[in-house]
Amino acid sequence: MTLKVYLSGEIHTDWREQIVEGAKGLDVAFDAPVTDHDASDDCGVRILGSEDQKFWHDHKGAKLNAIRTRKAIADADVVVVRFGEKYKQWNAAFDAGYASALGKSLIVLHGADHQHALKEVDAAALAVAEDPIQVVQMLRYVLSGALPD
Amino acid sequence: MTLKVYLSGEIHTDWREQIVEGAKGLDVAFDAPVTDHDASDDCGVRILGSEDQKFWHDHKGAKLNAIRTRKAIADADVVVVRFGEKYKQWNAAFDAGYASALGKSLIVLHGADHQHALKEVDAAALAVAEDPIQVVQMLRYVLSGALPD
Amino acid sequence: MTLKVYLSGEIHTDWREQIVEGAKGLDVAFDAPVTDHDASDDCGVRILGSEDQKFWHDHKGAKLNAIRTRKAIADADVVVVRFGEKYKQWNAAFDAGYASALGKSLIVLHGADHQHALKEVDAAALAVAEDPIQVVQMLRYVLSGALPD
Amino acid sequence: MTLKVYLSGEIHTDWREQIVEGAKGLDVAFDAPVTDHDASDDCGVRILGSEDQKFWHDHKGAKLNAIRTRKAIADADVVVVRFGEKYKQWNAAFDAGYASALGKSLIVLHGADHQHALKEVDAAALAVAEDPIQVVQMLRYVLSGALPD
Amino acid sequence: MTLKVYLSGEIHTDWREQIVEGAKGLDVAFDAPVTDHDASDDCGVRILGSEDQKFWHDHKGAKLNAIRTRKAIADADVVVVRFGEKYKQWNAAFDAGYASALGKSLIVLHGADHQHALKEVDAAALAVAEDPIQVVQMLRYVLSGALPD
Amino acid sequence: MTLKVYLSGEIHTDWREQIVEGAKGLDVAFDAPVTDHDASDDCGVRILGSEDQKFWHDHKGAKLNAIRTRKAIADADVVVVRFGEKYKQWNAAFDAGYASALGKSLIVLHGADHQHALKEVDAAALAVAEDPIQVVQMLRYVLSGALPD
Amino acid sequence: MTLKVYLSGEIHTDWREQIVEGAKGLDVAFDAPVTDHDASDDCGVRILGSEDQKFWHDHKGAKLNAIRTRKAIADADVVVVRFGEKYKQWNAAFDAGYASALGKSLIVLHGADHQHALKEVDAAALAVAEDPIQVVQMLRYVLSGALPD
Amino acid sequence: MTLKVYLSGEIHTDWREQIVEGAKGLDVAFDAPVTDHDASDDCGVRILGSEDQKFWHDHKGAKLNAIRTRKAIADADVVVVRFGEKYKQWNAAFDAGYASALGKSLIVLHGADHQHALKEVDAAALAVAEDPIQVVQMLRYVLSGALPD
Repeated sequence: MTLKVYLSGEIHTDWREQIVEGAKGLDVAFDAPVTDHDASDDCGVRILGSEDQKFWHDHKGAKLNAIRTRKAIADADVVVVRFGEKYKQWNAAFDAGYASALGKSLIVLHGADHQHALKEVDAAALAVAEDPIQVVQMLRYVLSGALPD
Repeated sequence: MTLKVYLSGEIHTDWREQIVEGAKGLDVAFDAPVTDHDASDDCGVRILGSEDQKFWHDHKGAKLNAIRTRKAIADADVVVVRFGEKYKQWNAAFDAGYASALGKSLIVLHGADHQHALKEVDAAALAVAEDPIQVVQMLRYVLSGALPD
Repeated sequence: MTLKVYLSGEIHTDWREQIVEGAKGLDVAFDAPVTDHDASDDCGVRILGSEDQKFWHDHKGAKLNAIRTRKAIADADVVVVRFGEKYKQWNAAFDAGYASALGKSLIVLHGADHQHALKEVDAAALAVAEDPIQVVQMLRYVLSGALPD
Repeated sequence: MTLKVYLSGEIHTDWREQIVEGAKGLDVAFDAPVTDHDASDDCGVRILGSEDQKFWHDHKGAKLNAIRTRKAIADADVVVVRFGEKYKQWNAAFDAGYASALGKSLIVLHGADHQHALKEVDAAALAVAEDPIQVVQMLRYVLSGALPD
Repeated sequence: MTLKVYLSGEIHTDWREQIVEGAKGLDVAFDAPVTDHDASDDCGVRILGSEDQKFWHDHKGAKLNAIRTRKAIADADVVVVRFGEKYKQWNAAFDAGYASALGKSLIVLHGADHQHALKEVDAAALAVAEDPIQVVQMLRYVLSGALPD
Repeated sequence: MTLKVYLSGEIHTDWREQIVEGAKGLDVAFDAPVTDHDASDDCGVRILGSEDQKFWHDHKGAKLNAIRTRKAIADADVVVVRFGEKYKQWNAAFDAGYASALGKSLIVLHGADHQHALKEVDAAALAVAEDPIQVVQMLRYVLSGALPD
Repeated sequence: MTLKVYLSGEIHTDWREQIVEGAKGLDVAFDAPVTDHDASDDCGVRILGSEDQKFWHDHKGAKLNAIRTRKAIADADVVVVRFGEKYKQWNAAFDAGYASALGKSLIVLHGADHQHALKEVDAAALAVAEDPIQVVQMLRYVLSGALPD
Repeated sequence: MTLKVYLSGEIHTDWREQIVEGAKGLDVAFDAPVTDHDASDDCGVRILGSEDQKFWHDHKGAKLNAIRTRKAIADADVVVVRFGEKYKQWNAAFDAGYASALGKSLIVLHGADHQHALKEVDAAALAVAEDPIQVVQMLRYVLSGALPD
C-alpha cells in the first residue's frame, strides 16, 4: 500500500519538511501547493498578463493554483490540513471541505487555541493532531501497524 | 424552475432575512443552518450527554449540526456563503469547499477588506457580491431574466 | 426540509414505534424493513418456490428483502441503526456499512455493553445514542433548531 | 489482470496466511487491516493523547484504523470477509456492507453454524465459502481459468 | 414508499397487463418501452426521414427509442426483464445489463427452458420468476410485507 | 413519464416557441437560457458592478448565466441544441458536450449546410433533425408511442 | 496511450486470437472471460460444492465468473462484443448493456443476418463491424492514426 | 506529480508542437486527437465500409474518433482547447463542454477577436491564454512553482 498524502494549509513554518523528513522510508508520496508566497500570489498575471484591479489579479492567480490543488486533492488518499497561528487561512478550510466532500481521509493539524473555531472542520476529520510528528506516527501506523515507543 | 438555495456562513447579522425577504415571490426554496449560536454549540451534549472535555463537547455538537448541513448542501442548487467582519469563520470556508467539490453553483458574499484572503474561495465561485440585495437580484435574473432597473 | 429516515436493525422491541410516535408533527418520512420475522424469513420461498437447502431458502428471502432495503437506504437522508441486546445482528452492521459508503448520515443506537464491539460502526456515525427518545430529539433539533428542555 | 484483494474480518486464526501462502505465484495483491489486536485498540490514544472515557479512547483508534481500511476497500477488486466462531464481529459485517455499496466483488467466508445469521451478507456476495483454500481456488480460477483437480 | 418499476423485454404477450392489473392498489408507478412493434421499428425514419440502408433505418429508430428506455431505466427502482419463448431478445438482455450496472434491483422473468442460457442474467438479479403473478406478489411484499395466502 | 427538456442554442429565431407550442398537451417541462441578448450580455455588470475590460464584463455575465444553464442541463432528461445559420455559437456546442458527458439524451437541430462541421456533435446525439416540428414529433413519440400521420 | 480492451461474447471461434494476433505491436492490453466452456459452467460447484438443482449449479458458476467479468469491463476503455452464428448469447448482450451504462466505448461484431435483432445494441455502439480484422484496424487507427492501405 | 494534458481543437497550425517542445523536461504526458485531417474524416468508411450518404460517412468517422477522444479526455488532468482563426470548430467547443462536465481543469487558447464569442467557454476555464508559450509556462508553474523570468 502506497499512501498519497496532500499537505494543505499554512506556508510560513516548516511543518511540511518535518513530516516529509520524519516519513522517510515509509511508502508515502507527498504533494503540496506552491509554497512560495509571492509566486503563488502573482503567477496569474506574470504568465497571463497584468490586471488593473486587485480582484482580477488575485483571481487569475488563484485559478492557476487551482489546477495544481484540485489534481493533488483528487489524487490523494489522505489530506492533511494545517492551521497556523496567524492569518485567516480560509483556503485551508476550503481545501478541508473540498477533500471531505470527495471522501478523502482528513487529518487536521492545529494548536489548542483554534479548537473551538475549527470544530466543524475537526468533526469531519479522522484525526486531529497538534504536532507534525503525530502525523508521521499516524502514517507509519497506517502503513505498518507500528506504534511509537 | 425552482432554485434550492442554501445560505451558509455568518450568523450575527440579518443578511439571511434580507435575502429571504427580497426574494419573496420568486420560486426559491431557502435553507440555512441552525443560527441560534448557543443551541448550535450545545446541541450535542444537551441531547447525547455532557462531556468533560471541551473538544468532545464541541465534537458532538458539530457532528449533529452536520446532519442538517450536509443534507442542505447536497440538496441545494446554489450555495451562498457569507463572510462577515469578525471571527475565523472556517466553517463557512469549509462549506464553500464542500459545495464546490459537489459541483454546486457557489456565490460568495463579503466585504472588500476580505478580498485577498478569500481569493481561492472567490475563484471557485460563479459570483462574488458585497450586498445581500445583489444575491436577490441574481436569483431574480437566474429565474426570470429580469435585471434591476 | 423533509428528512427521510430509515430505521434499520433490531426487530424485537418497539423502538421504531417510540421514534415514529415521538416524531409526530415533525417533517420526517420514516421507512423500515419488513419487521414480521416469519414473513421476512420465508418470503422468498413463499413466492418463488420452495428449496430443499436452508441456504437457498434463506438466499431467496434475503434477496427479495434487499429490493426494499436498498431502495430505502438509497432514498434516506439519515439511517438509524439499532443494535439490541441479543442476536448477531450482522444485517444491522451490514446496513450501517452500506449507508456509510453512500455518504448517508448515520445514527447508531445501542446500550453501553456493546460500546467496544461497535467502535468501528460508531466511528462512522454522526451520533451515538442509547435511547430512542434521543433520536427524536435529534430529528427535532435538525429540523427546527429546538432543543429539549 | 492483477487482482487487488482485501482480507477483512476475524484476526484470531491464520486464515489470511493460508490464503496468501496458497495464492503464491498468482497475480494478486493482498491487503488487510492491522491485525495486532492491542495496537489496533490503542493506536488512537498512543499517538493522539490519552482519553478518560473508554468511548473516546476507542473512537480515536477506530477512526485512525479507518484511514487504512477505507483506502484498502476502495482500492480492492475483491473483498473477502471472514466471520470466525467467536465475538460479535460487527466491523466485519460493516466492511461487507461498505464494500457492497461500492460495487466490490464480495466473498464471504464462514462456518455452517453462522449460515442463517449471515443470510443478508451472503445474499450480497458473489461467493460463500467455508475454507480459506476455496478462496485460493477461486482467485486462481478467476485469474487463469484453472480449476482444482 | 413508491416503487418505480420498468417492464422491459417481450412485447408479444400480455404479461405487462397482468402485472399492472394485479398491482392495482399498490403504490407502484410502471413504465415500459413503446410496445407497438411497427411504430418501434419505423419511428426513426417516419420522423427524421427515410433511409436506403436497413442498418440506418433501424439505427435511427433504435436511438429514438433509447431516449425513452434510458430515462425509464435511470428513473426506475426495479427493472423487470421478461424473456419470452421466441426471438433473440438481445435488447432485453442489454437492458438487464444496463440496469445492473446502474445498481437497479433486477427481476428476471422466463420459462424453465431458458434457465441455462440466462444464467449470467439471473446471477445479476435479486429474483428469478416464471409467472407475472409472482412479480405482483413480490411488489406487494416489498411494499407492505404481505405474503400470498 | 414527464420529460424535462432543455432548449439550448440559437436565440434569434422562434424555434423554441414552435416546439413549446407544438408540444402543448404533452407531459413535457421545458427550460431554456435567458434569451434576451442584451440582458444575457450585461447581467453580470448590471448586478455586480461595471468592469473596464470587456473580458471581465463578459466573464461576470457568462458565470451568472451559468447558474441557470448548469442547473437546467443537470435537471434535464433531453437536451435539444439548435445551431442557426449565423454566428459562432460555441456556447451551443459547449452545452452539447456538457450534456453528453452527463449522459443526457441529446437532440441536435441544424440545417444541411452545417452537417460536416457538426459531425462530432451529431455523433454524440440520439437524433439529428432540421425542423423544430420533428422535435415535437419525437417528444410525442417518446411519451406516447404515437407517430405523425 | 494504452488501450485496455475487453473481448466479450462468442467462445466457439478463434476471433479473439485473430484480434490479439493482428494487434501485435500495438499498445493494447487485452482481457477476456474464461473461454473454456466446461470450466466456465462448472467452476462454482467444483470449488464451492455440488448442487442438486441445475439452477443453483449454474448460479454459483455465473457469480464466480462475474468476479472476472465485472472487473475486466470496469477496467476496460473499449469493450468488443462478438455475436456468433449460434446460441442465445444473452450474456454477450448483457455485457454490452453493462458496458454501455458505464460509458465504455462499445464495438459490436456480428454478421449481417443478426443486424435487425441487434439494432438496440448497435445503436449504443461507437462501431459495428463484421470481421475481427476491422477491430484490429480500428485499434491501430485509434492509437496511431494509421489507416489500412 | 505527472500532469496528463489533452490538446484539443485547431489542427491547422503547429501550436501542439510548440507546447510539446516547450514542455520538454517537464513531467507531462500529452495526448491529442488524430490531426491528419483526411484520415480523421475518412477513417470510418475506410475501415467499416463506404456510405452513399455524406451524413453517415461522417457519422462513422466521428464515432470512431470518439473512441480516442473520450478516453483521452477522461484520462486527462488538464484539457487545453485551442480555437484558431478559421472554421466553425464546434468540436473544440464540444470537447470543452465535455471536459468541463467531467471536472477537468480547462485552459482555453484563442486570439482576442474571439473573446466575446467564447465568453461561456472562457467562463468555465481556469485560464485563458493567447499564446502556446503561456500554456508551457503554466504547466511549468503548476508542476514546479517556477515562474517565467
